[in-house]
Formats: sequence, C-alpha cells, structure tokens
Amino acid sequence: MSVNRNILTNQIVQKESFLCVGLDTEIHKIPSHIQKLNNPLFEFNKRIIDATHDLAVAYKPNIAFYESLGVEGWKALEKTTAYIRSKSEKIFIIADAKRGDIGNTSRKYAETFFKQYDFDAITINPYMGEDSVKPFLEFPDKWVIILALTSNPGSQDFQFDRVSHGKRVFEKVLEKSSTWGNPDNTMYVVGATRANMFVVVREHVPNHFILVPGVGSQGGNMNDVARYGMIKDCGLLVNASRSIIYASDSIDFEEAVRKSALDLQLEMKKLLKSS
Amino acid sequence: MSVNRNILTNQIVQKESFLCVGLDTEIHKIPSHIQKLNNPLFEFNKRIIDATHDLAVAYKPNIAFYESLGVEGWKALEKTTAYIRSKSEKIFIIADAKRGDIGNTSRKYAETFFKQYDFDAITINPYMGEDSVKPFLEFPDKWVIILALTSNPGSQDFQFDRVSHGKRVFEKVLEKSSTWGNPDNTMYVVGATRANMFVVVREHVPNHFILVPGVGSQGGNMNDVARYGMIKDCGLLVNASRSIIYASDSIDFEEAVRKSALDLQLEMKKLLKSS
Repeated sequence: MSVNRNILTNQIVQKESFLCVGLDTEIHKIPSHIQKLNNPLFEFNKRIIDATHDLAVAYKPNIAFYESLGVEGWKALEKTTAYIRSKSEKIFIIADAKRGDIGNTSRKYAETFFKQYDFDAITINPYMGEDSVKPFLEFPDKWVIILALTSNPGSQDFQFDRVSHGKRVFEKVLEKSSTWGNPDNTMYVVGATRANMFVVVREHVPNHFILVPGVGSQGGNMNDVARYGMIKDCGLLVNASRSIIYASDSIDFEEAVRKSALDLQLEMKKLLKSS
Repeated sequence: MSVNRNILTNQIVQKESFLCVGLDTEIHKIPSHIQKLNNPLFEFNKRIIDATHDLAVAYKPNIAFYESLGVEGWKALEKTTAYIRSKSEKIFIIADAKRGDIGNTSRKYAETFFKQYDFDAITINPYMGEDSVKPFLEFPDKWVIILALTSNPGSQDFQFDRVSHGKRVFEKVLEKSSTWGNPDNTMYVVGATRANMFVVVREHVPNHFILVPGVGSQGGNMNDVARYGMIKDCGLLVNASRSIIYASDSIDFEEAVRKSALDLQLEMKKLLKSS
C-alpha cells in the first residue's frame, strides 16, 4: 500500500500534526550506548520512531547518510522503512535523495526507491527538466517532491535569478513542472528560511503539498510558513531533523526526542485550529 | 592515488584517445551467457574493461544502475572500480551520480564516492548552489563535474532561460561555479547534442575539461564537439555508453565492444592530430 493524498490528509487531521521527522542519522552523533549495539543506525532510528510515531505524519531518511556507509547503510535504511510500516501503514515515507537524470536513468532511480525500497516519495532536482522527472510519475500512488526554493545559502546562486516576464527561476520551475503531474503525485520543497516567498509559491501551486525544511537548526519560522503556506487540507509537511533526533545524547534521550517533537506538534495543532 | 589533470592529459597523449566508456550496465541487456554467472554485472563490466582499457582514458559507472539492485549492485560497483585500478592506476573513474544537497549532506555524498568507493570524480547538479558543491572540492586531487548543459530533451526546460544581461541559465552556472574551484578540480557536463553551444561554453570556461555525453545512441556529432570544444591539452572527455557496451549480445560480444571503442578512438586520434 502507498500513502495517497487522502490517507495523508486524514493522518494530519487525526494526529493534529503536519510534522515530518528527518532521519539524518550519523553514527558519531548518536548516543554512545546506541553506538555500541549491532546495527546502530537502525537501533537509533527505531528508538526515534518509537518516541515520535504518534506525533509525526511523515519520516524523511536523508539517503546520503546511509549511502555513505555502503552496504551496512542500505541495510539500515531497509530496516528503518520496514519498521515505520510496522508501526503504521499510513505514515508517509520520503527518500530525501535529490535525484534526477536522463529518462532511462531516472527510471532506475525510481525503481530503487519505489520498488527495491518501500518509499512513498522521493525528492527530485529539476535542473534536467521534464524527461528527468516523468519516469518517477509513472508509478501509481507514488510521489515526486521537486526542489523549488531550497533552505540553504546556495539557493541564492541560481534559484532567484529573473527569467522571462520577471519570473524567478524557482517560479519557472513551479509553473512548468506543475503541468507534468498533479497535486496528487507532486509536491515541492520550499525552505522555511524563505517564508516570505510562500505567497509567491502559492500563486503558482495553490493546491500542492509543500515539504518545508529549515525549521529548527536552520532557523526558519513555522508561524510564517503556516500563515503564508497553509491551504484547506493543510498542504504542508514541516520537517525537523537535527533539532529532534539529536535533542539529547543521554541514556534516556528518547524523552528529550519526544519532548522536542511534541513541542512542534502542539504548535502545529494550534496552527491547524486557527486556520 | 588519484588521477590529477597531469596524469589525465598524459593518458590522452599516450592512448591518443579522450574516450570515456559509460558503464550503464543493466542485467536484462547483457549477453545471456553472462547473466547466468555469479555477479553478472561485475562479470560483464570486467569483460568490457578487458576489451577497452587500452583505448579509454576514463570509465563512468552510472550509479542508478547499481543502486537499483541494492546491496548486490553496490558490491558490483566496488568490484568494478577495483578492477579498473588493477588494470591501471592512471584511468580516470567517474561516479555519474548527479548528487548535490545542503552542505552537511553533500559532505556525506563526497565521503561515499571519494572514500567509501574509490572514484576520482562525481557528477553534481548545481541547482542548490555553492554550499552544495563546495564540500566535494575539499578532497585533494578529487574532481567535481558540474551539470551545465545536458544532452537530454528536458535541458530545454530551464537551462536555456535567459537571466541577467541576456546570459542563459547554463552560462550563469558556468560563470558562477567556475569561481568555486579551478580547472584542476572542476569539470563540466555539456551534451554533444548541443555542439553549437561549445563556442559559448568555451567563452566562460576556456581551460576546464568538459565531459561530453550524447555521442552514440543520443546522436551527437564528435567532429563538431572537437571543433568547438577542444583546447590545447584536449580538455574533452567524450563518453559513449550504450553504443559500446551493448554493441553485441553474442557469445563473443567482446570483439564487437572493442571494435566499437576502437572506431571512436581512431576518430579521436585524427582529431587530436589535426588540432
């Protein structure tokens, strides 16, 4: 089963949350007593999932952190997605992979993340255009999440450049790529550090879900994101990674992790009620 | 040891070749007698390498094709790079991975391909800007190969858009990103299907090496590429993948593979002599 828009929005209503927990798991950052276990990455993720699965509607493993460990990392990733599914089949699982290549190659990446591994969605870089994105859209009930406006300093380098009719590159990406799929199989990445841009983003994609990194360690403001970005069925997944998963490195770190996720969920609950 | 510019250009002179062989290896496309072996991907690659290593100065495994097979694929990739090194430490090995993410994540991808696996270079998508590329440049004697103008139809979607002062997006990418590194650690991807654009490309990056996909199956013309793109120490790596590695599926496919690579190398020899 895959998580479609209906399931996702129902989860948001039931959990009163649009929280995505980013699993940017690094061996040297996890508590030392977990480092000593077999499969430390998975053992850490398992505890994060146990502590947050009733508060989060989505998880987002950052593929780089697993890939860099080779075979062990890929095994940890597989066990992690399976563990999330064992908690609930309704949780949305995103491969934060930033892939995209010519058609026959994108098809291979799609097979990797949608068939070999059991993800609902994958983040995609739009630079190579339509035929680099389309193969991902051929998988029923799966999602692409296209980079529009990223949260990092380098987003200034090209994404804001003005192209035709005064539109910026990220606007052109929204405008063009939103015709390749639809709001049931396409989302966008827009960083919380650019909250004032959500008004512009919503002009181009009024009905799409937006995955929002940059709240927490990167300094973005969730109130602004919700004020300018929230739509009728929410339409937002706000991600926090380091501020939740590395909330503590003590023996009982799970409590601090839960507290950190709960603080965000309570904020989200208020924002959902007042919208 | 890594392959620096000096080693690479010496190889080009000695082999009279600027051929890069793309290892886009797919299990269902390889000869059936190889499919039956243990580690069929590696066994196929081994035979391709045996048949071409004196004609090619570079190999470019397409990471998607290995990643899609999970753990088995990564093992085949590791054995492939090791096998290339066993033939010669002077052959340039490119991870065609199209990666790029925020700084801490790009650092992980760099560790994957430069430390976990033994690549000299990795292809990078520039959309996320400077901090997504810089971490790769921190590894001495390693290379980034930044997408400028790709060979696929979707390159029309964003790369040709005019930004400030009439420059196109791909020109802005060349201009800006060439200040992040230098011609000893940065190359660019420019598709052979855009050979008339090499004049413009060379205005921005007169001294950088260019990796050129799109000759062969995609229809690009090597003479045009050399006419407009070649510089004093060649400055070109022309890649062919499918037209070489799938030249035949018979029991003696290695002969057709070698013939296909040799045809390209002979063309290159002429172009190097007449330049």
